[in-house]
Amino acid sequence: MREVVDINCDMGEAFGRWRVGDTDDAALMPLISSANIATGFHAGDPNLMDQTVRLAAEHGVGIGAHPGYNDLQGFGRRKIAGTARELVNDIIYQVGAIREFAHRHGVRLQHVKPHGALYMEMAANPELSQIFVQYMRTVEPNAYIFCMGGSATWRAAGEAGQPVVREFYADRDYDDSGSIVFTRDAGRPDPAAIARKVLRACKEGKVRTVTGNDIAIDFESICFHSDTLGAFDIVRQMREALVGAGIRIAPVSNVAGR
Amino acid sequence: MREVVDINCDMGEAFGRWRVGDTDDAALMPLISSANIATGFHAGDPNLMDQTVRLAAEHGVGIGAHPGYNDLQGFGRRKIAGTARELVNDIIYQVGAIREFAHRHGVRLQHVKPHGALYMEMAANPELSQIFVQYMRTVEPNAYIFCMGGSATWRAAGEAGQPVVREFYADRDYDDSGSIVFTRDAGRPDPAAIARKVLRACKEGKVRTVTGNDIAIDFESICFHSDTLGAFDIVRQMREALVGAGIRIAPVSNVAGR
Amino acid sequence: MREVVDINCDMGEAFGRWRVGDTDDAALMPLISSANIATGFHAGDPNLMDQTVRLAAEHGVGIGAHPGYNDLQGFGRRKIAGTARELVNDIIYQVGAIREFAHRHGVRLQHVKPHGALYMEMAANPELSQIFVQYMRTVEPNAYIFCMGGSATWRAAGEAGQPVVREFYADRDYDDSGSIVFTRDAGRPDPAAIARKVLRACKEGKVRTVTGNDIAIDFESICFHSDTLGAFDIVRQMREALVGAGIRIAPVSNVAGR
Amino acid sequence: MREVVDINCDMGEAFGRWRVGDTDDAALMPLISSANIATGFHAGDPNLMDQTVRLAAEHGVGIGAHPGYNDLQGFGRRKIAGTARELVNDIIYQVGAIREFAHRHGVRLQHVKPHGALYMEMAANPELSQIFVQYMRTVEPNAYIFCMGGSATWRAAGEAGQPVVREFYADRDYDDSGSIVFTRDAGRPDPAAIARKVLRACKEGKVRTVTGNDIAIDFESICFHSDTLGAFDIVRQMREALVGAGIRIAPVSNVAGR
Repeated sequence: MREVVDINCDMGEAFGRWRVGDTDDAALMPLISSANIATGFHAGDPNLMDQTVRLAAEHGVGIGAHPGYNDLQGFGRRKIAGTARELVNDIIYQVGAIREFAHRHGVRLQHVKPHGALYMEMAANPELSQIFVQYMRTVEPNAYIFCMGGSATWRAAGEAGQPVVREFYADRDYDDSGSIVFTRDAGRPDPAAIARKVLRACKEGKVRTVTGNDIAIDFESICFHSDTLGAFDIVRQMREALVGAGIRIAPVSNVAGR
Repeated sequence: MREVVDINCDMGEAFGRWRVGDTDDAALMPLISSANIATGFHAGDPNLMDQTVRLAAEHGVGIGAHPGYNDLQGFGRRKIAGTARELVNDIIYQVGAIREFAHRHGVRLQHVKPHGALYMEMAANPELSQIFVQYMRTVEPNAYIFCMGGSATWRAAGEAGQPVVREFYADRDYDDSGSIVFTRDAGRPDPAAIARKVLRACKEGKVRTVTGNDIAIDFESICFHSDTLGAFDIVRQMREALVGAGIRIAPVSNVAGR
Repeated sequence: MREVVDINCDMGEAFGRWRVGDTDDAALMPLISSANIATGFHAGDPNLMDQTVRLAAEHGVGIGAHPGYNDLQGFGRRKIAGTARELVNDIIYQVGAIREFAHRHGVRLQHVKPHGALYMEMAANPELSQIFVQYMRTVEPNAYIFCMGGSATWRAAGEAGQPVVREFYADRDYDDSGSIVFTRDAGRPDPAAIARKVLRACKEGKVRTVTGNDIAIDFESICFHSDTLGAFDIVRQMREALVGAGIRIAPVSNVAGR
Repeated sequence: MREVVDINCDMGEAFGRWRVGDTDDAALMPLISSANIATGFHAGDPNLMDQTVRLAAEHGVGIGAHPGYNDLQGFGRRKIAGTARELVNDIIYQVGAIREFAHRHGVRLQHVKPHGALYMEMAANPELSQIFVQYMRTVEPNAYIFCMGGSATWRAAGEAGQPVVREFYADRDYDDSGSIVFTRDAGRPDPAAIARKVLRACKEGKVRTVTGNDIAIDFESICFHSDTLGAFDIVRQMREALVGAGIRIAPVSNVAGR
C-alpha cells in the first residue's frame, strides 16, 4: 500500500471568455497537488496562464506545462501532421511561455505533460519522444515528464535519465493491455465508483478492465480531467477516500522520491 | 566621437513558408551585433525561432525578444485594444517562448524590444511601461529594454533601475521633435546616404530632420529593418563606414557599459 | 400599440467544444424569430454554422449574418484598427460564408447585424457604414441591416434605400440620450423586470433610463443576448408577456412591412 | 490535337504583407484563363480576395474557389485530422466567402479546386468526395470541380453529374501510374522544357514519366503554380508554344464544352 500519492489535473483550459465543461479551477485547485496548465495552443491564453500559475502557487500545487497541438477549434484532440523536430519546437515554445509566468510568480516548473493528441502521438513515436527528452535534459534536467508507463516517452526518458511520473487515469477506463479506452463523450461518471477504483489502485496496485479482468497498474500520480462532467465531485470523493485510508496527497516531487 | 556602437535588426520575421521583404537573415546576421527575434505573434514560428536563435548564437550576436501584437495579418502594425495588464501578459508569453530557445542553445536573453504598434503604444503609455518594467525587474533584472530616449518606456525603466538602450533609426527619418516619421512604403532608400547619416550621428551626435534642421541625438544602438528594401546593402555600407572611421561594432552589453 | 414584433438573438456563438454563458441554442431557437448567426471571426465555426442555420430554418426563424472583428480571444469586443475598406472586406467574407450555408439548407439570408465592437464602430463611423451599405445594395438589396436608430449605419442605409431594422435592447439599460449603457458583467438580470420593460416599450413606445427618466423608443425588433445569464428565462417570460398582450412575434420581414 | 485549352493557376496566395515565391498576380493574370483564388485558410485574406477577384474579372479569367486546410503556417500542406463532414463544412465556408466577393464584382463562380493536402485527401477519400459533390449539386450545379482524372473526386462528380475538369500539371512530374510526384523544393525548373512538355501533352496526349516511359494523359486544363520559382517565365513560354501551335487558350467553360 502506497503512503503518498500525487493528484494531477489539467488547469487553465479556458480561452478569453470561452469555457469547456462545468467546473472552475478555483474550486479544484485546493484539492489537487499538481496542475497541468494549458499553454495557449489548444487552450489557455496569456492572461489565464498568469492567473492559473498564481493560483497554483498560492495552493502549493506543482506547476506543469501542458503543451498541445496548435488547434484551438479541435481542443488539441486532432492530430496535425508534422515532423518530430517541428512538434518539439511547438512544445519548447509553449513550455517557455508558461515557465516565464512561473518565474514571474517565484516558482519553478515541476513537470511537462503534453495534451490530448500530442500526448498520444508522443507515447507512440520514439523519435518525437527522444528529441523531446533531449530538450528536457538540456534545459530542465530535474523536471518530470508525465507519461504512461511503457510508452515511447517513458522509455526515452528512462534511457536518458530524465525523471518521469507514470499516471493512473481516474476517469478513464482500461483495457486488458493496460491502454486507456478513450471516449469523447463519457457522460457524467459516478464519483463514488471512481473513488473506489482509485483507492483500490493505490492499495492493491490493481484495476478492473472494461472486459472485467484485473490487471496490475503502477503509477506515481492520479490524473482526472477538469472537463469531465462533475469533476469537482470526482476529486472531492477521491480525495476523501484516499485521506480516509491514510494516504497522503502531495505534489509529485514528494511522491516520486527524486 | 563614439568608440563602439551596437547594430540591431529585427530577425526571424518570417512565418512557415511566408516571407516579407527581399532579404534573408543568414546574410544579415554576420553584419549585426544584436538581433530582435520575432516571437510568433506578429511574425515568427517555433521552428524559425529555434533556427534564428542558433544562427545568432553562432555569430555572437546578442539575442533579444521581439514581442508584438497578436496580429499576423497586420504584421503587428495595427493597434489592438487591451488593458496594460493584458498586453504585458502577451509580452511575458512571448519573451518566455524565445528565452526557452535561447536556453536550449546555451545563450542568455540580452534584451527585449517590442515590435511595431506595440513599441509605439508602450512608448506613449506610462501604465503599460511600468507594468512591463516591473515584470522585467522580477524575472530578468539585467536584460536591456530597447526604446526611444524620452519615451514612457525609457522613463519607467530609468525610475526602476532596469538597463535601457536608446536607438537611432538608420532607415527612418526624424522630425524636429526627435520623433520618427513613420512611412509604410519607404521605397528603396539610398544605402550610401544612410551610411553617411549614421556615421555623422555616431561622430557628431546629430541628425538632419525632414525639415532640414539639425537636432542632437543620443543612443547606444543603431536600428535598421530587415524588411526595408535593400537591407543587406544598407547594413553593409553602414558597417563599412563605421569601421572605416575606427568605430567598433559590438553587442549592446559591450556598448552600454553595464 | 404594436401588433407584431420581431425577437432577435445572437446564435451559434460557440467554437469547437468551447462555450460562452449557460444557455443553449436548441432551447432558445423555438422562442425567437430572427437569429444573428456568428460567422467564425469572433465566434462560430463552419460545423456550428451549418448546424445553426439548419436549426433556424427548421423553426422558420429568419437567418442573419453576425460578422465581428477577427478576435476569438476577445469575443469581438476589442476594437482592432483597420480602414473602412478592410473592415467591410472582413464583413463580406463572413456574410458570404454564412450565406453559403443558408443556400445549402434552401433558405435566404434575411439580415446582417455586425457584432460587438464592430457594431459600435459602424454605428459611429459614416465611411464604414457607407461602404458597407454600398456592398449590401450590390449583393443583397432586399436584406435588412440591423442597427440603432439614429446611428451612422441607420442614416447610410436610409440614404441608399437599403431596408433597416431598429432594435430595442431587452437586456441592456438606456441613458437619457437613448444610447445603451454597456456593462461587461451584468450579473443575472430579473426576467420579470425585463418582460415588463419590453411590454411597455411595445405598448407605449417608452423606456425608463438609468437616471429614471422616460424616453421615447421606436424599433422593429427586440434584441437579447444568448450569453446573458438566464437567457432562456428572459426570452420565455418576455414572449409570454407579449403574446399575453396580443402581440404577435414574427421574423422581421413580416414586421417591417417591406 | 486539341484546339483549345484552359490554363489555371493558384492566385491570391499572399496574406497581409506576407508573400510566398517570387511572382506577382498582376503579371500572371493576363496569361491565364482560370484562377484558383485562395480563400483565407491556407493563404489569402479578405482584402486580397476582393482585389484578386476584381483583377480576374477585369481580365475575363474564370474565377475559382481554392479552399484549403485551416493551416496558414503549413500553407495547407499538412493534413489535419477531421471527419468528412467537418472538412466539407470548412470548404463550404470558404467557397461562400469567395463567392460573395465574386457577386460584389458582378461575376459568377466558375469552379472549385481544393488546395494542397486537402486536394490530395479528397482525391483519395470517397466519403469526403461524395459529401463535397452533394453540396455542389445543391448550391452550384453548374460549377466545375477541378480534380485528377481517376481520383475519388472525379468518380463522385461523374456519378452525381457535376461537371469536372481534369488537370495536367505543367510544373510537376508524373510516375508511370499517372500520379504526380510531389516534391517540396523543386528548385527553378526550365521554362522551355515545361513548354515542350505541355505542348506535347496537348498535341499527342502523352507525357514522359520520371522513369522515362510515355503514358497517355487526358485533361481540360493545364495547371502551374504561382509559387514555383520563375512562374512568370513558365507561363509565358508555355503560352507562346501553345498559341504558336494554333491552340487557343480560354476559360474552362469554353473548353469543357458544357
